[in-house]
Amino acid sequence: MAVQTVATPTVDLGPAAALSCRECGHRVPLGPVFACEECFGPLEIAYDFSAYDTDKLRARIESGPANIWRYAPLLPVPADVADKPNLNPGWTPLVKADRLARELGVTGGLFVKDDSGNPTHSFKDRVVAQALEAARAFGFTTLSCSSTGNLAGAVGAAAARAGLRSCVFIPHDLEQGKVVMAAVYGGELVGIEGNYDDVNRFCSELIGDPAGEGWGFVNVNLRPYYAEGSKTLAYEICEQLGWKLPDQLVVPIASGSQLTKIDKGLKELIALGLVEDKPYKIFGAQAEGCSPVSAAFKAGHDVVRPQKPDTIAKSLAIGNPADGPYVLDIARRTGGAVEDVTDPQIVDAIKLLARTEGIFAETAGGVTVGVTRKLIESGALDPSLTTVVLNTGDGLKTLDAVAGTGLTATIRPNLDSFREAGLA
Amino acid sequence: MAVQTVATPTVDLGPAAALSCRECGHRVPLGPVFACEECFGPLEIAYDFSAYDTDKLRARIESGPANIWRYAPLLPVPADVADKPNLNPGWTPLVKADRLARELGVTGGLFVKDDSGNPTHSFKDRVVAQALEAARAFGFTTLSCSSTGNLAGAVGAAAARAGLRSCVFIPHDLEQGKVVMAAVYGGELVGIEGNYDDVNRFCSELIGDPAGEGWGFVNVNLRPYYAEGSKTLAYEICEQLGWKLPDQLVVPIASGSQLTKIDKGLKELIALGLVEDKPYKIFGAQAEGCSPVSAAFKAGHDVVRPQKPDTIAKSLAIGNPADGPYVLDIARRTGGAVEDVTDPQIVDAIKLLARTEGIFAETAGGVTVGVTRKLIESGALDPSLTTVVLNTGDGLKTLDAVAGTGLTATIRPNLDSFREAGLA
Ligand SMILES: [Zn+2]
Ligand SMILES: [Zn+2]
Repeated sequence: MAVQTVATPTVDLGPAAALSCRECGHRVPLGPVFACEECFGPLEIAYDFSAYDTDKLRARIESGPANIWRYAPLLPVPADVADKPNLNPGWTPLVKADRLARELGVTGGLFVKDDSGNPTHSFKDRVVAQALEAARAFGFTTLSCSSTGNLAGAVGAAAARAGLRSCVFIPHDLEQGKVVMAAVYGGELVGIEGNYDDVNRFCSELIGDPAGEGWGFVNVNLRPYYAEGSKTLAYEICEQLGWKLPDQLVVPIASGSQLTKIDKGLKELIALGLVEDKPYKIFGAQAEGCSPVSAAFKAGHDVVRPQKPDTIAKSLAIGNPADGPYVLDIARRTGGAVEDVTDPQIVDAIKLLARTEGIFAETAGGVTVGVTRKLIESGALDPSLTTVVLNTGDGLKTLDAVAGTGLTATIRPNLDSFREAGLA
Repeated sequence: MAVQTVATPTVDLGPAAALSCRECGHRVPLGPVFACEECFGPLEIAYDFSAYDTDKLRARIESGPANIWRYAPLLPVPADVADKPNLNPGWTPLVKADRLARELGVTGGLFVKDDSGNPTHSFKDRVVAQALEAARAFGFTTLSCSSTGNLAGAVGAAAARAGLRSCVFIPHDLEQGKVVMAAVYGGELVGIEGNYDDVNRFCSELIGDPAGEGWGFVNVNLRPYYAEGSKTLAYEICEQLGWKLPDQLVVPIASGSQLTKIDKGLKELIALGLVEDKPYKIFGAQAEGCSPVSAAFKAGHDVVRPQKPDTIAKSLAIGNPADGPYVLDIARRTGGAVEDVTDPQIVDAIKLLARTEGIFAETAGGVTVGVTRKLIESGALDPSLTTVVLNTGDGLKTLDAVAGTGLTATIRPNLDSFREAGLA
């Protein structure tokens, strides 16, 4: 995996050698840029892994810390990243979900990669941790983002640990509970009079203005670094399976970045010889109320037509997913599919996962479990193969989705009342 | 650490050899009992660790899984516990809290043991995991408890993963959010018309009745097993410090069981040769609104006078703590202390921990951090020594405590408004 370096990086981000355009291949030095100057395509990290010996690399990973930094040699971070103050996310459980498997009829081994175990209880800690290292490398002093949920907390917490200023922009009328979750880390939390689109437009304006100098927007000008964090999901899944590729993966789709980076991570492991090459299928999961990629997949289209989101799966509610076309390509190339489920199916799936495995998932986890069930029923997913389903967030953050859940009985504090209720 | 076995256990709970009375030393075979038949004192597990070689044991632990089962040789669980379906809690981060240390003036190394990383986001997963193994060993088919918070979720989730029935008893008028968190795992969730004392009285009645046959109440008839789970906090802290005892620990006090078992765990590590023997001090932390142990400590009493709890730290609100006298003994013996903080100090401490380390703690974490600050100010805690502060739960579960936290600014979506707000 040698690369042709076009410029000597002036920053130390480990094996990251340059930024490369996903569309035209144009390369530029590492910097806080995200769009190709030639074709406006998305820039992503190009690595120099040429010096790695497979066995030494595997041993180095296995003796590393129980977090994403065990994979530092494969990420755009300096070699001493684990010694710096950061949230150290990752190495979350890969749960062998035997009881869920029985309910779904999966016989080939079903696993839930449960990212609710991250420090702020969503996979966002993985990506923000990369953006933080890039921010440090570029000398940024403010970590920022627009968000209506998980990302706000992940950025606030990471900046707090690192001693950086944070400034998170949210719509001014967000629910009080979500405001508290974002505000508690003590950074700037700015309400914008407008909707989420207004917030994003304002952030783009700020990046282009002198007022935004020294500001790292994790998912805008630091996006190429940020996005790489999702590769760690692929690394962990394979290592936790005993350095083996799973046969099938079910991944939620918001912007589509996570799915494409998981595919990138799997391909890297194959190229590095860390896993044996074999076919794998990647399935994408959306909520029906925001299913532009699923719709395009089913229609056989290569382009994704934007939708106006209306679903309880708010963390996946991106109506115009930037990486949609790449997701379509990966699903088709690997023999996977993209499917969607309704809000009631999402709630059912959250409850199914909770009662079979004791995992309380965010709505996004209901989407992947629900889609897994639907894909098995349709025959698109083979139940006799090893299958990994992602849960990317925590049910405590989307309590409203299961607000209907309640007491199964009410009794007086005596045994007669207990017996009458049929509980004995 | 050989023990004189009085009866051959009919159950396999690994190194657990018998139950032994903490007061009079009377021994009985392993079983679902919790009070001494001679003196009504609390029964606890007596182990047979005599066969262990220190170096082999350390190597076995270090090569074990990244959860509490790496310490299976020191817990009342069968050797194959890690192969059974359970939540696999533990091995939570020991965070080097350098920014908090600077704020508090700690120079000797300050660490936060952050148990919000457990599967249901509190330390209760550690103790319930032990109770689950005891329930399996005794052939119980229902896992039960009374609870108003963290324990309900921990029991519901653990039973769900294990495929056991669960039945959790709560006051019928508990807040809807807490009901949802307990109900989502799909077990029986029974509201009792009465207060928490009524719930507990009813549970005791049920245990003594044929209707309660086959029921394991994790913190009643399985309490001797359950309580041992807190030892794993001591094991992890020492191993994460490089097999070293910390100089000072700050531990929250609810029933006092956690603090006494941490002390037990530390003593075991010394006796087994896994750490070098040296003095350590254990400090207990309470909320002023429920500070019976702190009051007794300050008054120089050996007995604890019950209080009626009135504090936001609900997970510590036990007015008549069963292990209070043992806590007093340990704090005095080790040269520690017991201190309490007010509700506003708890909230301040939650925010301090969040803004310095990106850790969003439950109110109980605000208690330990607040008490640490107070103990440093009073000189009881030496800031030049290595200090470990426990955070036993997650802020998402006690959002109300910091409900006053909110937006730092509200602006219109343009740069002028941004500049006017002084955010540039
Ligand atoms: Zn290009
Ligand atoms: Zn006794």
